[in-house]
Amino acid sequence: MTDMMQAWRLRSRPDGDIADGDLELVTEPIPSLSDGQVLVEVNYVSLDPTNRIWMSDMDQYMPPVALGDIMRAGIAGTVLESKHAKYTPGMTVGGLGGWATHFVADAATIQPIPDVPGISLAKIFGSLGGTALTAYFGLLDICDPQPGETLVVSAAAGAVGSVVGQIGKIKGSRVIGIAGGPDKCAYVVDELGFDACIDYKNEDVGSRLDALCPDGIDINFENVGGDIMEAVMSRMNDFSRMPLCGMISTYNDSEDQPGPKSWPLILMRRIKVQGFIVSDYARDFGKASMQIAQWAAEGKIKTREDIRPGIENAVTTVKDLYTGGNFGKLLLEVKAP
Amino acid sequence: MTDMMQAWRLRSRPDGDIADGDLELVTEPIPSLSDGQVLVEVNYVSLDPTNRIWMSDMDQYMPPVALGDIMRAGIAGTVLESKHAKYTPGMTVGGLGGWATHFVADAATIQPIPDVPGISLAKIFGSLGGTALTAYFGLLDICDPQPGETLVVSAAAGAVGSVVGQIGKIKGSRVIGIAGGPDKCAYVVDELGFDACIDYKNEDVGSRLDALCPDGIDINFENVGGDIMEAVMSRMNDFSRMPLCGMISTYNDSEDQPGPKSWPLILMRRIKVQGFIVSDYARDFGKASMQIAQWAAEGKIKTREDIRPGIENAVTTVKDLYTGGNFGKLLLEVKAP
Repeated sequence: MTDMMQAWRLRSRPDGDIADGDLELVTEPIPSLSDGQVLVEVNYVSLDPTNRIWMSDMDQYMPPVALGDIMRAGIAGTVLESKHAKYTPGMTVGGLGGWATHFVADAATIQPIPDVPGISLAKIFGSLGGTALTAYFGLLDICDPQPGETLVVSAAAGAVGSVVGQIGKIKGSRVIGIAGGPDKCAYVVDELGFDACIDYKNEDVGSRLDALCPDGIDINFENVGGDIMEAVMSRMNDFSRMPLCGMISTYNDSEDQPGPKSWPLILMRRIKVQGFIVSDYARDFGKASMQIAQWAAEGKIKTREDIRPGIENAVTTVKDLYTGGNFGKLLLEVKAP
Repeated sequence: MTDMMQAWRLRSRPDGDIADGDLELVTEPIPSLSDGQVLVEVNYVSLDPTNRIWMSDMDQYMPPVALGDIMRAGIAGTVLESKHAKYTPGMTVGGLGGWATHFVADAATIQPIPDVPGISLAKIFGSLGGTALTAYFGLLDICDPQPGETLVVSAAAGAVGSVVGQIGKIKGSRVIGIAGGPDKCAYVVDELGFDACIDYKNEDVGSRLDALCPDGIDINFENVGGDIMEAVMSRMNDFSRMPLCGMISTYNDSEDQPGPKSWPLILMRRIKVQGFIVSDYARDFGKASMQIAQWAAEGKIKTREDIRPGIENAVTTVKDLYTGGNFGKLLLEVKAP
């Protein structure tokens, strides 16, 4: 067994787009284990929009990654060595780790990932894990969607948006997606069963929303921010709901952006805008995960993974998130399970 | 009995501040009554920040006042003549009327105002009516204030803000007001029992908030918008609440303003921002009014009215709202009751 690992360390905070040199791939000794710790060999690194937030020092929901530290990420891996009674070598676990081939975790910060026959680890960990839970709680807890309501979801082909729309359909909503390019839009409508999808790269979002949402918009599940958010928000109905899940279009901005011009509509139309982070709902993960797994087994929730090989490709790969270059839940396969 | 009335008609939509000529005081015949209608002689016109919204054609929660129409307002008055069985001459009623000495109302659009010994009509209609209900529902329904939480309310000496803070105290919150000038601040603390009040005309709001809210802000009851909103919003806690009741500081802006720079904090700190209009809660007015009256009788809610005489002074008087020139609920006394 090797005693060396590879890891990406944050060297400087990106100013705008992530630049060469902001992160450095280093080879270094695997730390030795203390009591209560577990050594995990990483199979998958989850690459998520929020990674860019963690690289910055903007005001955020958990401490930013410190300069010099290994870049933080959700990971799934295999226990190699354990100094905690609950974990034994060979077990599959998940938790907050980093962009690395190995990591040493306090046992309290990881959880076992169950083996489900016929479903890949990439799907269980990637698409049906944190991102599906994000969709589940953001839509059901904040919006309480009602049959016949119109739900618009941006980044509709993405890991969160795709599940939001499918849960919306389960709840009887009319679901309009917004995604980039004809392939993603076709997937959203033909494979996932959305009522329609707007191609923001080739269509005028505002006029398409007018055509597709003649009765206005009751729920705006907001993943992207910027101009698309503005277009959706200006068409929201009285008493509509807007969970703020992400604003990926703004994460690479080097200057602070003002809030949306539609801000006064929050008052005039009595809109509820509410931010959330999936970890706020940790105590309800068990029940929600069972529901998601059941829907997936029934074919009501389909997911797609975009798996890229090689720890050395972490930076190149994560950048795709901010240009729409991924198609499905983006995972880095560090070592095939 | 006269058959003529005076009324302010909207002639042009203000661009920025209300200008001479935007409204015209006319003398004209009182319309004759149809079946089901009531002629009301106006005692008080309620002058409220939202009047400026109704004069504009901005996207708003009810239709704007049409050009040429009598300027809309809440009024309290005395029935002079009735073609509806429920109303008889001499009864005191309230409803949506206009800036006028008389108006003809469909009976369904007015309500009797009960006579309460020892409490003036100006107080019952003005301070303990719609504005107190606005405070009640915005704070209790949207914020669910908890003992020990920190509540900040802008326009704290105003009709809504003063009641918000007092209900906050009843619920056990620490209450910090923001008001303009030492007299208003002294009133808010000494008379109303707020824990502190920031004088935005003479103090730096941000540094005073830092000093007075060392544990951050749990509830921001937003009445003013603009720079004060920005200062409060940037200091809001995780899971804090922000009912959007008004943005008076922006109503005279002739150009659209962008939303607050603190917009991303809604996500990062999981803030709930929710707009509301008091009429949304109409079905619960009865119960709430009884609670407010009880608190007022117990001395837990004190109010102050700023009563100005003369229908001819409507425009001059309403302008005071936008400069902070009123002190208490602003009412125009058209005819003493």
